[in-house]
Amino acid sequence: MMNTKKRRLEVCITPAIYDKHAHDENLVVVIDVLRATSSICTAFANGVDRIIPVATVEEARQKKEAGYIVASERDGYVLDFADFGNSPFNFSADKVKGKQIVYSTTNGTRCIHMASHSQEVLIGSFLNLSALAKYLIAQDAPVLLFCASWKDRFSLEDTVCAGALAELLLNSGQFESICDAVTASVDLWSLAKTNLNSYSLKTAQKGRLASKGLDDCMEFCHQLDFTNLIPYYTNGTLLAKSMGHSEK
Amino acid sequence: MMNTKKRRLEVCITPAIYDKHAHDENLVVVIDVLRATSSICTAFANGVDRIIPVATVEEARQKKEAGYIVASERDGYVLDFADFGNSPFNFSADKVKGKQIVYSTTNGTRCIHMASHSQEVLIGSFLNLSALAKYLIAQDAPVLLFCASWKDRFSLEDTVCAGALAELLLNSGQFESICDAVTASVDLWSLAKTNLNSYSLKTAQKGRLASKGLDDCMEFCHQLDFTNLIPYYTNGTLLAKSMGHSEK
Repeated sequence: MMNTKKRRLEVCITPAIYDKHAHDENLVVVIDVLRATSSICTAFANGVDRIIPVATVEEARQKKEAGYIVASERDGYVLDFADFGNSPFNFSADKVKGKQIVYSTTNGTRCIHMASHSQEVLIGSFLNLSALAKYLIAQDAPVLLFCASWKDRFSLEDTVCAGALAELLLNSGQFESICDAVTASVDLWSLAKTNLNSYSLKTAQKGRLASKGLDDCMEFCHQLDFTNLIPYYTNGTLLAKSMGHSEK
Repeated sequence: MMNTKKRRLEVCITPAIYDKHAHDENLVVVIDVLRATSSICTAFANGVDRIIPVATVEEARQKKEAGYIVASERDGYVLDFADFGNSPFNFSADKVKGKQIVYSTTNGTRCIHMASHSQEVLIGSFLNLSALAKYLIAQDAPVLLFCASWKDRFSLEDTVCAGALAELLLNSGQFESICDAVTASVDLWSLAKTNLNSYSLKTAQKGRLASKGLDDCMEFCHQLDFTNLIPYYTNGTLLAKSMGHSEK
């Protein structure tokens, strides 16, 4: 029997105002298109066993000393002790299949931990958009789309991705919103979707990545539905589920 | 002689991240379309002598006891000791002409005080859009468009107004931006401007005002260029200038 009461949908456009949107009953989708959540989705598509997100450089270093494979960077630069950085191309099957990877990034990891009080913390990107929408529609709880952003500033690519997801959720008829950030993100997605790759070139993050030679992943990160896996956070670890299964 | 170095343009979409955008050399435009900055522009158009913005209810009460006319509200409700509230229709010539008004509101006043370290703090709304753009273009300092928002959340009407102003500034060729909030606000304005009154009905603030019977000012606040006066903050007081004059 369908619940006729519509579910709350909100978009949080920066971690700086996460507390305004936080509710324990929320299903929270963390979105960091360039590049953390795109890389996490790619890693699961390529068969990683689990990913352990850590918040600090020091924790990442300790995990490396304990024998883990470590992906870690700050401000786009790979840390000296790490095995590799944050590009989705690093999370190839030959490097990650069947492995446990420790992962620390500038913005994405922090948001996962901030939201960990919630009913569920899911990892979203353009790469798993449709699977994620289907999963969320099949649940029965309010949804918060949480843009990781860049150093607490408004981030265009994360907001556009939130808009793509919000549009699918609103079209299901199950959700309602009185959140201006939902309206804005859906409107920005309506402008971006006719040529997402071209639109993505307008983002400030494209410029920041390009200045470090790291913008080769722009097109990859803006493709829809590369995988139907939905990474989620549980007991300090990221695992993945697909629709109808509790775990990959 | 024109300075050939382009000037920085940024949009701050919530006071919660004002510190990321704050620079002493900034010309800051505080935007609170519904309704503080629209009301301030209206008051000057109707001949108010000066407006004294105060941050707290207690300060507003003390000013009332000292004999001032006080406009004050919290969450849309007029405070019991105040002469009137925050609707632009309250700031009519018969009430404000030649007078000094003390003004305290939920979001707008706070932002004016937050930005008071800056080179200039100006008051912006759709009502003085073109005059403000002309004035800013004629200066030689970076510009920050500061959306007062609603309780630190993303606010659609303030962001769209910032986009309208940003478009005029960017079209002058004098400004450059690597700020995603500029791009997003200009894009949202591009969707809104063909029918601004219709677009404004999508805002969450419209619903909040309507629930209190306060949405009669929607159309008024979304009209362009009602006045060519530019209110500005100096020594604890709001005065107004027009292009070419230092004071009204």
